Amino acid sequence: MAQPGLTERELRAWRTSFQMLELLRTRVEQQLQSASGLSNADYTVLAVLSEAPEGRMRVYELGRVAGWEKSRMHHQLTRMSGRGLITRERCGSRGTHAVITAKGLATLKDAVPGHAREVRRLFVDRLTPEELDRFADTAAKILDNLQADQSPA
Amino acid sequence: MAQPGLTERELRAWRTSFQMLELLRTRVEQQLQSASGLSNADYTVLAVLSEAPEGRMRVYELGRVAGWEKSRMHHQLTRMSGRGLITRERCGSRGTHAVITAKGLATLKDAVPGHAREVRRLFVDRLTPEELDRFADTAAKILDNLQADQSPA
Repeated sequence: MAQPGLTERELRAWRTSFQMLELLRTRVEQQLQSASGLSNADYTVLAVLSEAPEGRMRVYELGRVAGWEKSRMHHQLTRMSGRGLITRERCGSRGTHAVITAKGLATLKDAVPGHAREVRRLFVDRLTPEELDRFADTAAKILDNLQADQSPA
Repeated sequence: MAQPGLTERELRAWRTSFQMLELLRTRVEQQLQSASGLSNADYTVLAVLSEAPEGRMRVYELGRVAGWEKSRMHHQLTRMSGRGLITRERCGSRGTHAVITAKGLATLKDAVPGHAREVRRLFVDRLTPEELDRFADTAAKILDNLQADQSPA
């Protein structure tokens, strides 16, 4: 790699982007926690499962979508299972499925409007529609690479 | 608020952006952890302090820069103090200062090149210079609002 370090300009861009994303996820989670007792991770799992056929998905696939390693996924699902938000079912040779419960679905439905308002207030409404689309396009480029990158350095 | 919910397009933009930022921070932290035993939060504290005059900053100001609440900042600094990376000093009526130690500075210096390479690999090099600037400009808009927003809903 010819230039492993970052230029001043690149470093500024990274720091601004990183600080924004840290603060945004903290704020979004504060609203979720105080209104519904959910973390960002809980919300992601519930939202993904709720949209899957029969509210179920292979744990492996769920981890891929969420971008979590096996042990993080395991601990996350154990906590959510203990709270009655999901269950886990062995499915023979096809591994374990995570399944959203009625309580999980009800908790998610209660949480959605307040979460959407906060996302709108802190993110969507700050940008013009063009800025939002461009930002998401750039995020998608970075995300595609992250998902394809199976061997982090 | 006329439309508290999100349109399909807004929801897609949010989800892509949120998934990207979650995966990016996880990956960047994996590199930091495995190479230097530092979390993203550790790195942020060390980097900010290392650039402050005399390597010290009021804890209040550090929390503002990092975007953390008082209790999170407290726990973070307690852990880092236990590892000898920083110390805390009472400064009369001006509150408590966090001060980077020689060990903290050495740990940061060891971590910088690998961290910069990973940021370049996963973020900077994925984008054209124009995309990077636009992304950072948009991030700055969102960040300004987050920092000005003292009373989350």
